[in-house]
Amino acid sequence: ALPSAPDSRLARQLAFILEIDKLKSVLRRSVLADGSRQENDAEHSWHLAMMAIVLGEYADEEVDTGRVLRMLLVHDLVEIYAGDTFLYDPAEAAEQEARERAAADQLFPRLPRDQAVQLRSLWEEFEARRTPDARFARALDRVQPLILNYATGGGSWQTHGVRAEDVLAHQRVISEGSHALWEYVSQLVGDAVRRGYLAA
Amino acid sequence: ALPSAPDSRLARQLAFILEIDKLKSVLRRSVLADGSRQENDAEHSWHLAMMAIVLGEYADEEVDTGRVLRMLLVHDLVEIYAGDTFLYDPAEAAEQEARERAAADQLFPRLPRDQAVQLRSLWEEFEARRTPDARFARALDRVQPLILNYATGGGSWQTHGVRAEDVLAHQRVISEGSHALWEYVSQLVGDAVRRGYLAA
Ligand SMILES: [Ca+2]
Repeated sequence: ALPSAPDSRLARQLAFILEIDKLKSVLRRSVLADGSRQENDAEHSWHLAMMAIVLGEYADEEVDTGRVLRMLLVHDLVEIYAGDTFLYDPAEAAEQEARERAAADQLFPRLPRDQAVQLRSLWEEFEARRTPDARFARALDRVQPLILNYATGGGSWQTHGVRAEDVLAHQRVISEGSHALWEYVSQLVGDAVRRGYLAA
Repeated sequence: ALPSAPDSRLARQLAFILEIDKLKSVLRRSVLADGSRQENDAEHSWHLAMMAIVLGEYADEEVDTGRVLRMLLVHDLVEIYAGDTFLYDPAEAAEQEARERAAADQLFPRLPRDQAVQLRSLWEEFEARRTPDARFARALDRVQPLILNYATGGGSWQTHGVRAEDVLAHQRVISEGSHALWEYVSQLVGDAVRRGYLAA
Protein backbone atom coordinates (compact mmCIF):
# COMPACT_ATOMS: atom_id res chain seq x y z
CA ALA A 1 0.00 0.00 0.00
CA LEU A 2 1.02 3.61 -0.56
CA PRO A 3 1.28 6.30 2.14
CA SER A 4 -2.12 7.90 2.68
CA ALA A 5 -2.75 11.11 0.78
CA PRO A 6 -4.08 14.18 2.60
CA ASP A 7 -6.93 14.09 0.10
CA SER A 8 -8.95 10.87 0.12
CA ARG A 9 -9.91 11.27 -3.56
CA LEU A 10 -6.24 11.29 -4.57
CA ALA A 11 -5.59 8.34 -2.25
CA ARG A 12 -8.26 6.26 -4.03
CA GLN A 13 -6.92 7.22 -7.43
CA LEU A 14 -3.33 6.29 -6.54
CA ALA A 15 -4.46 3.00 -5.01
CA PHE A 16 -6.21 2.25 -8.31
CA ILE A 17 -3.05 3.11 -10.27
CA LEU A 18 -1.10 0.70 -8.06
CA GLU A 19 -3.76 -2.04 -8.34
CA ILE A 20 -3.77 -1.98 -12.15
CA ASP A 21 -0.03 -2.65 -12.17
CA LYS A 22 -1.26 -6.27 -12.08
CA LEU A 23 -2.28 -6.03 -15.76
CA LYS A 24 1.45 -6.41 -16.53
CA SER A 25 1.26 -9.94 -15.17
CA VAL A 26 -1.78 -11.13 -17.16
CA LEU A 27 -0.32 -13.24 -19.96
CA ARG A 28 -1.90 -13.61 -23.39
CA ARG A 29 -1.61 -16.51 -25.83
CA SER A 30 0.34 -14.35 -28.33
CA VAL A 31 4.11 -14.21 -28.20
CA LEU A 32 6.23 -11.13 -28.96
CA ALA A 33 7.34 -10.56 -32.56
CA ASP A 34 10.81 -11.93 -31.70
CA GLY A 35 9.26 -15.09 -30.25
CA SER A 36 11.05 -14.57 -26.92
CA ARG A 37 8.08 -14.81 -24.56
CA GLN A 38 4.30 -14.40 -24.17
CA GLU A 39 2.88 -10.93 -24.39
CA ASN A 40 1.11 -9.40 -21.38
CA ASP A 41 -2.08 -7.34 -21.38
CA ALA A 42 -0.43 -4.02 -20.42
CA GLU A 43 2.05 -4.00 -23.29
CA HIS A 44 -0.65 -5.32 -25.63
CA SER A 45 -2.85 -2.33 -24.65
CA TRP A 46 0.04 0.06 -25.35
CA HIS A 47 0.60 -1.55 -28.75
CA LEU A 48 -3.08 -1.16 -29.66
CA ALA A 49 -3.00 2.49 -28.63
CA MET A 50 -0.01 3.04 -30.94
CA MET A 51 -1.97 1.35 -33.73
CA ALA A 52 -4.86 3.76 -33.13
CA ILE A 53 -2.44 6.67 -33.53
CA VAL A 54 -0.76 5.33 -36.69
CA LEU A 55 -3.71 3.60 -38.41
CA GLY A 56 -6.56 5.98 -37.52
CA GLU A 57 -7.04 6.98 -41.17
CA TYR A 58 -8.30 3.47 -41.99
CA ALA A 59 -11.39 3.67 -39.77
CA ASP A 60 -14.48 3.36 -42.01
CA GLU A 61 -16.50 5.79 -39.91
CA GLU A 62 -15.34 9.02 -38.35
CA VAL A 63 -13.71 8.30 -34.99
CA ASP A 64 -12.51 10.40 -32.07
CA THR A 65 -8.93 9.19 -31.65
CA GLY A 66 -8.71 10.43 -28.05
CA ARG A 67 -11.73 8.28 -27.12
CA VAL A 68 -10.40 5.30 -29.07
CA LEU A 69 -7.13 5.62 -27.13
CA ARG A 70 -8.91 5.73 -23.78
CA MET A 71 -11.05 2.73 -24.73
CA LEU A 72 -8.05 0.66 -25.79
CA LEU A 73 -6.03 1.58 -22.69
CA VAL A 74 -8.92 0.49 -20.46
CA HIS A 75 -10.41 -2.43 -22.44
CA ASP A 76 -8.44 -5.28 -20.85
CA LEU A 77 -8.43 -4.06 -17.23
CA VAL A 78 -11.14 -6.55 -16.22
CA GLU A 79 -8.70 -9.35 -17.07
CA ILE A 80 -6.79 -8.48 -13.87
CA TYR A 81 -9.47 -10.54 -12.11
CA ALA A 82 -11.09 -12.43 -15.01
CA GLY A 83 -7.91 -13.60 -16.78
CA ASP A 84 -7.28 -13.66 -20.52
CA THR A 85 -9.81 -15.59 -22.62
CA PHE A 86 -8.63 -17.49 -25.66
CA LEU A 87 -10.82 -16.49 -28.58
CA TYR A 88 -10.66 -19.91 -30.21
CA ASP A 89 -11.77 -21.88 -27.16
CA PRO A 90 -15.62 -22.02 -27.18
CA ALA A 91 -15.86 -23.28 -23.57
CA GLU A 92 -13.81 -20.36 -22.26
CA ALA A 93 -15.60 -17.83 -24.43
CA ALA A 94 -19.06 -18.95 -23.23
CA GLU A 95 -18.52 -18.04 -19.59
CA GLN A 96 -16.29 -15.07 -20.36
CA GLU A 97 -19.00 -12.43 -20.21
CA ALA A 98 -20.22 -13.29 -16.70
CA ARG A 99 -16.63 -13.51 -15.42
CA GLU A 100 -15.72 -10.14 -16.90
CA ARG A 101 -18.82 -8.41 -15.52
CA ALA A 102 -17.98 -9.67 -12.05
CA ALA A 103 -14.43 -8.40 -12.52
CA ALA A 104 -15.70 -4.97 -13.62
CA ASP A 105 -17.87 -4.82 -10.46
CA GLN A 106 -14.76 -5.53 -8.43
CA LEU A 107 -12.37 -3.18 -10.22
CA PHE A 108 -14.02 0.09 -11.23
CA PRO A 109 -15.62 0.99 -7.84
CA ARG A 110 -12.09 1.37 -6.45
CA LEU A 111 -12.07 4.74 -8.24
CA PRO A 112 -14.00 7.83 -7.11
CA ARG A 113 -17.59 7.38 -8.29
CA ASP A 114 -17.47 9.79 -11.27
CA GLN A 115 -14.39 8.09 -12.70
CA ALA A 116 -15.68 4.59 -11.95
CA VAL A 117 -18.74 5.39 -14.07
CA GLN A 118 -16.66 6.89 -16.90
CA LEU A 119 -14.19 4.02 -17.17
CA ARG A 120 -16.82 1.33 -16.86
CA SER A 121 -18.89 2.92 -19.58
CA LEU A 122 -15.86 3.05 -21.91
CA TRP A 123 -15.37 -0.67 -21.28
CA GLU A 124 -19.07 -1.42 -21.88
CA GLU A 125 -18.96 0.60 -25.09
CA PHE A 126 -15.95 -1.37 -26.32
CA GLU A 127 -17.69 -4.65 -25.55
CA ALA A 128 -21.00 -3.65 -27.18
CA ARG A 129 -19.40 -2.55 -30.49
CA ARG A 130 -22.29 -0.22 -31.26
CA THR A 131 -20.38 3.03 -31.82
CA PRO A 132 -17.82 3.90 -34.53
CA ASP A 133 -15.10 4.37 -31.86
CA ALA A 134 -15.77 0.91 -30.41
CA ARG A 135 -15.95 -0.80 -33.81
CA PHE A 136 -12.58 0.62 -34.80
CA ALA A 137 -11.01 -0.17 -31.41
CA ARG A 138 -12.26 -3.78 -31.65
CA ALA A 139 -10.87 -4.10 -35.17
CA LEU A 140 -7.41 -3.07 -33.94
CA ASP A 141 -7.66 -5.50 -31.02
CA ARG A 142 -8.17 -8.31 -33.55
CA VAL A 143 -5.52 -7.21 -36.07
CA GLN A 144 -2.67 -6.98 -33.56
CA PRO A 145 -2.32 -10.69 -32.64
CA LEU A 146 -2.55 -11.64 -36.33
CA ILE A 147 0.50 -9.49 -37.01
CA LEU A 148 2.39 -11.09 -34.11
CA ASN A 149 1.39 -14.59 -35.20
CA TYR A 150 2.50 -13.94 -38.75
CA ALA A 151 5.79 -12.38 -37.62
CA THR A 152 6.61 -15.44 -35.51
CA GLY A 153 5.81 -17.90 -38.30
CA GLY A 154 2.57 -19.11 -36.76
CA GLY A 155 2.81 -18.27 -33.04
CA SER A 156 -0.35 -19.12 -31.09
CA TRP A 157 -2.07 -20.49 -34.24
CA GLN A 158 0.38 -23.35 -34.23
CA THR A 159 0.47 -23.93 -30.47
CA HIS A 160 -3.32 -24.12 -30.36
CA GLY A 161 -4.10 -25.80 -33.69
CA VAL A 162 -6.08 -22.89 -35.13
CA ARG A 163 -7.09 -23.13 -38.84
CA ALA A 164 -7.51 -20.44 -41.50
CA GLU A 165 -11.31 -20.76 -41.53
CA ASP A 166 -11.42 -20.19 -37.73
CA VAL A 167 -9.31 -17.08 -38.09
CA LEU A 168 -11.44 -15.66 -40.88
CA ALA A 169 -14.71 -16.44 -39.08
CA HIS A 170 -13.60 -14.96 -35.75
CA GLN A 171 -11.86 -11.97 -37.28
CA ARG A 172 -14.81 -10.82 -39.39
CA VAL A 173 -15.22 -8.21 -36.60
CA ILE A 174 -12.35 -6.35 -38.27
CA SER A 175 -14.52 -5.66 -41.32
CA GLU A 176 -17.03 -3.82 -39.09
CA GLY A 177 -14.37 -1.24 -38.22
CA SER A 178 -12.08 -1.01 -41.24
CA HIS A 179 -12.43 -2.44 -44.72
CA ALA A 180 -8.82 -1.60 -45.56
CA LEU A 181 -7.52 -3.54 -42.56
CA TRP A 182 -9.89 -6.43 -43.24
CA GLU A 183 -8.64 -6.64 -46.82
CA TYR A 184 -5.06 -6.65 -45.57
CA VAL A 185 -5.83 -9.35 -43.00
CA SER A 186 -7.51 -11.60 -45.58
CA GLN A 187 -4.37 -11.36 -47.67
CA LEU A 188 -2.15 -12.01 -44.63
CA VAL A 189 -4.15 -15.15 -43.77
CA GLY A 190 -3.84 -16.46 -47.36
CA ASP A 191 -0.14 -15.78 -47.29
CA ALA A 192 0.21 -17.49 -43.89
CA VAL A 193 -1.44 -20.63 -45.28
CA ARG A 194 0.87 -20.65 -48.33
CA ARG A 195 3.90 -20.37 -46.07
CA GLY A 196 2.69 -23.10 -43.73
CA TYR A 197 2.28 -20.76 -40.73
CA LEU A 198 -1.43 -21.57 -40.56
CA ALA A 199 -3.34 -24.78 -41.40
CA ALA A 200 -5.77 -24.46 -44.34
CA ALA B 1 8.54 -9.08 -42.12
CA LEU B 2 4.85 -8.86 -42.92
CA PRO B 3 3.25 -9.63 -46.30
CA SER B 4 3.39 -6.57 -48.52
CA ALA B 5 0.28 -4.40 -48.53
CA PRO B 6 -1.31 -3.34 -51.83
CA ASP B 7 -0.84 0.20 -50.57
CA SER B 8 2.74 1.18 -49.78
CA ARG B 9 1.65 3.74 -47.17
CA LEU B 10 -0.16 1.03 -45.19
CA ALA B 11 2.85 -1.27 -45.64
CA ARG B 12 5.18 1.32 -44.04
CA GLN B 13 2.75 1.90 -41.19
CA LEU B 14 2.41 -1.81 -40.43
CA ALA B 15 6.17 -2.31 -40.61
CA PHE B 16 6.50 0.48 -38.03
CA ILE B 17 3.90 -1.17 -35.78
CA LEU B 18 5.88 -4.40 -35.97
CA GLU B 19 9.22 -2.63 -35.35
CA ILE B 20 8.01 -0.93 -32.17
CA ASP B 21 7.08 -4.31 -30.70
CA LYS B 22 10.73 -4.14 -29.56
CA LEU B 23 9.79 -1.58 -26.89
CA LYS B 24 8.40 -4.55 -24.92
CA SER B 25 11.95 -5.84 -24.55
CA VAL B 26 13.57 -2.61 -23.30
CA LEU B 27 13.95 -3.14 -19.56
CA ARG B 28 13.84 -0.36 -17.00
CA ARG B 29 15.46 -0.21 -13.56
CA SER B 30 12.06 -0.26 -11.82
CA VAL B 31 10.47 -3.54 -10.82
CA LEU B 32 6.74 -4.31 -10.89
CA ALA B 33 4.69 -3.54 -7.77
CA ASP B 34 4.75 -7.24 -6.80
CA GLY B 35 8.56 -7.29 -7.13
CA SER B 36 8.43 -10.20 -9.59
CA ARG B 37 10.56 -8.74 -12.40
CA GLN B 38 11.82 -5.55 -14.06
CA GLU B 39 9.30 -3.39 -15.86
CA ASN B 40 9.61 -2.83 -19.61
CA ASP B 41 9.10 0.42 -21.51
CA ALA B 42 5.88 -0.63 -23.28
CA GLU B 43 3.99 -1.51 -20.10
CA HIS B 44 5.49 1.57 -18.39
CA SER B 45 4.07 3.72 -21.21
CA TRP B 46 0.65 2.11 -20.80
CA HIS B 47 0.76 2.74 -17.05
CA LEU B 48 1.60 6.42 -17.59
CA ALA B 49 -1.27 6.77 -20.04
CA MET B 50 -3.64 5.33 -17.42
CA MET B 51 -2.26 7.87 -14.92
CA ALA B 52 -3.01 10.67 -17.38
CA ILE B 53 -6.62 9.45 -17.59
CA VAL B 54 -7.10 9.08 -13.83
CA LEU B 55 -4.97 11.97 -12.51
CA GLY B 56 -5.62 14.61 -15.19
CA GLU B 57 -7.42 16.88 -12.72
CA TYR B 58 -4.13 17.48 -10.85
CA ALA B 59 -2.39 19.22 -13.78
CA ASP B 60 -1.61 22.81 -12.70
CA GLU B 61 -2.25 24.22 -16.18
CA GLU B 62 -5.02 23.30 -18.57
CA VAL B 63 -4.00 20.23 -20.57
CA ASP B 64 -5.38 18.41 -23.60
CA THR B 65 -5.64 14.83 -22.30
CA GLY B 66 -5.67 13.35 -25.81
CA ARG B 67 -2.33 15.03 -26.58
CA VAL B 68 -0.89 14.03 -23.20
CA LEU B 69 -1.86 10.43 -23.96
CA ARG B 70 -0.22 10.50 -27.38
CA MET B 71 2.92 12.06 -25.92
CA LEU B 72 3.19 9.43 -23.18
CA LEU B 73 2.57 6.53 -25.56
CA VAL B 74 5.35 7.79 -27.85
CA HIS B 75 7.83 9.26 -25.35
CA ASP B 76 10.01 6.18 -24.82
CA LEU B 77 10.08 4.85 -28.41
CA VAL B 78 13.62 6.16 -28.99
CA GLU B 79 14.80 3.76 -26.28
CA ILE B 80 14.29 0.90 -28.77
CA TYR B 81 17.67 1.94 -30.17
CA ALA B 82 19.05 4.18 -27.39
CA GLY B 83 18.25 1.94 -24.40
CA ASP B 84 16.89 3.04 -21.04
CA THR B 85 18.91 5.69 -19.22
CA PHE B 86 19.14 5.57 -15.44
CA LEU B 87 18.25 8.99 -14.10
CA TYR B 88 20.64 8.77 -11.16
CA ASP B 89 23.73 7.90 -13.19
CA PRO B 90 25.37 11.20 -14.31
CA ALA B 91 27.68 9.51 -16.87
CA GLU B 92 24.75 7.86 -18.63
CA ALA B 93 22.59 10.96 -18.48
CA ALA B 94 25.30 13.15 -20.06
CA GLU B 95 25.42 11.29 -23.35
CA GLN B 96 21.74 10.42 -23.33
CA GLU B 97 20.58 13.32 -25.46
CA ALA B 98 22.88 12.61 -28.40
CA ARG B 99 22.06 8.90 -28.27
CA GLU B 100 18.32 9.56 -28.23
CA ARG B 101 18.48 12.04 -31.11
CA ALA B 102 20.32 9.48 -33.24
CA ALA B 103 17.66 6.93 -32.30
CA ALA B 104 14.87 9.32 -33.29
CA ASP B 105 16.56 9.83 -36.69
CA GLN B 106 16.58 6.08 -37.14
CA LEU B 107 13.04 5.37 -35.92
CA PHE B 108 10.56 8.01 -37.02
CA PRO B 109 11.45 8.11 -40.76
CA ARG B 110 10.15 4.54 -41.02
CA LEU B 111 6.70 6.12 -40.99
CA PRO B 112 5.14 8.02 -43.91
CA ARG B 113 6.58 11.53 -43.82
CA ASP B 114 3.54 13.34 -42.34
CA GLN B 115 3.34 10.91 -39.44
CA ALA B 116 7.11 10.84 -38.92
CA VAL B 117 6.99 14.62 -38.43
CA GLN B 118 3.98 14.43 -36.07
CA LEU B 119 5.38 11.74 -33.80
CA ARG B 120 8.86 13.22 -33.69
CA SER B 121 7.46 16.60 -32.74
CA LEU B 122 5.43 15.05 -29.92
CA TRP B 123 8.64 13.46 -28.63
CA GLU B 124 10.58 16.75 -28.95
CA GLU B 125 7.79 18.54 -27.10
CA PHE B 126 7.91 16.01 -24.27
CA GLU B 127 11.68 16.40 -24.00
CA ALA B 128 11.63 20.22 -24.09
CA ARG B 129 9.01 20.55 -21.31
CA ARG B 130 7.92 23.95 -22.59
CA THR B 131 4.18 23.32 -22.96
CA PRO B 132 1.56 22.52 -20.27
CA ASP B 133 0.91 19.10 -21.89
CA ALA B 134 4.62 18.22 -21.78
CA ARG B 135 5.10 19.46 -18.22
CA PHE B 136 2.24 17.33 -16.98
CA ALA B 137 3.35 14.28 -19.00
CA ARG B 138 6.88 14.60 -17.58
CA ALA B 139 5.54 14.89 -14.05
CA LEU B 140 3.64 11.60 -14.47
CA ASP B 141 6.75 9.94 -15.93
CA ARG B 142 8.59 10.84 -12.71
CA VAL B 143 5.83 9.93 -10.27
CA GLN B 144 5.27 6.40 -11.61
CA PRO B 145 8.62 4.81 -10.64
CA LEU B 146 8.40 6.42 -7.17
CA ILE B 147 5.11 4.59 -6.60
CA LEU B 148 6.65 1.29 -7.75
CA ASN B 149 9.74 1.81 -5.60
CA TYR B 150 7.64 2.58 -2.55
CA ALA B 151 5.33 -0.38 -3.18
CA THR B 152 8.30 -2.77 -3.35
CA GLY B 153 9.88 -1.41 -0.16
CA GLY B 154 12.70 0.40 -1.93
CA GLY B 155 13.04 -1.26 -5.34
CA SER B 156 15.61 0.40 -7.60
CA TRP B 157 16.50 2.97 -4.88
CA GLN B 158 18.00 0.17 -2.84
CA THR B 159 19.63 -1.71 -5.72
CA HIS B 160 21.33 1.47 -6.92
CA GLY B 161 22.07 3.22 -3.59
CA VAL B 162 19.90 6.26 -4.30
CA ARG B 163 19.35 8.71 -1.39
CA ALA B 164 16.37 10.89 -0.47
CA GLU B 165 18.15 14.11 -1.45
CA ASP B 166 18.87 12.68 -4.96
CA VAL B 167 15.23 11.74 -5.37
CA LEU B 168 13.98 15.15 -4.30
CA ALA B 169 16.51 17.00 -6.48
CA HIS B 170 15.81 14.93 -9.61
CA GLN B 171 12.07 14.81 -9.10
CA ARG B 172 11.59 18.57 -8.74
CA VAL B 173 10.36 18.31 -12.36
CA ILE B 174 7.10 17.01 -10.89
CA SER B 175 6.42 20.40 -9.31
CA GLU B 176 6.51 22.01 -12.77
CA GLY B 177 3.51 19.93 -13.82
CA SER B 178 1.48 19.36 -10.68
CA HIS B 179 1.77 20.86 -7.23
CA ALA B 180 -0.64 18.32 -5.78
CA LEU B 181 1.44 15.40 -7.05
CA TRP B 182 4.67 17.08 -5.92
CA GLU B 183 3.24 17.50 -2.43
CA TYR B 184 2.23 13.86 -2.37
CA VAL B 185 5.66 12.75 -3.58
CA SER B 186 7.47 14.81 -0.92
CA GLN B 187 5.37 13.07 1.69
CA LEU B 188 6.00 9.65 0.10
CA VAL B 189 9.77 10.25 0.15
CA GLY B 190 9.68 11.26 3.85
CA ASP B 191 7.65 8.19 4.63
CA ALA B 192 10.03 5.98 2.63
CA VAL B 193 12.96 7.28 4.68
CA ARG B 194 11.13 6.63 7.97
CA ARG B 195 10.39 3.07 6.88
CA GLY B 196 13.95 2.44 5.74
CA TYR B 197 13.02 2.01 2.04
CA LEU B 198 15.24 4.95 1.11
CA ALA B 199 18.50 6.21 2.66
CA ALA B 200 18.28 9.69 4.25
CA1 LIG C 1 9.50 7.20 -19.22
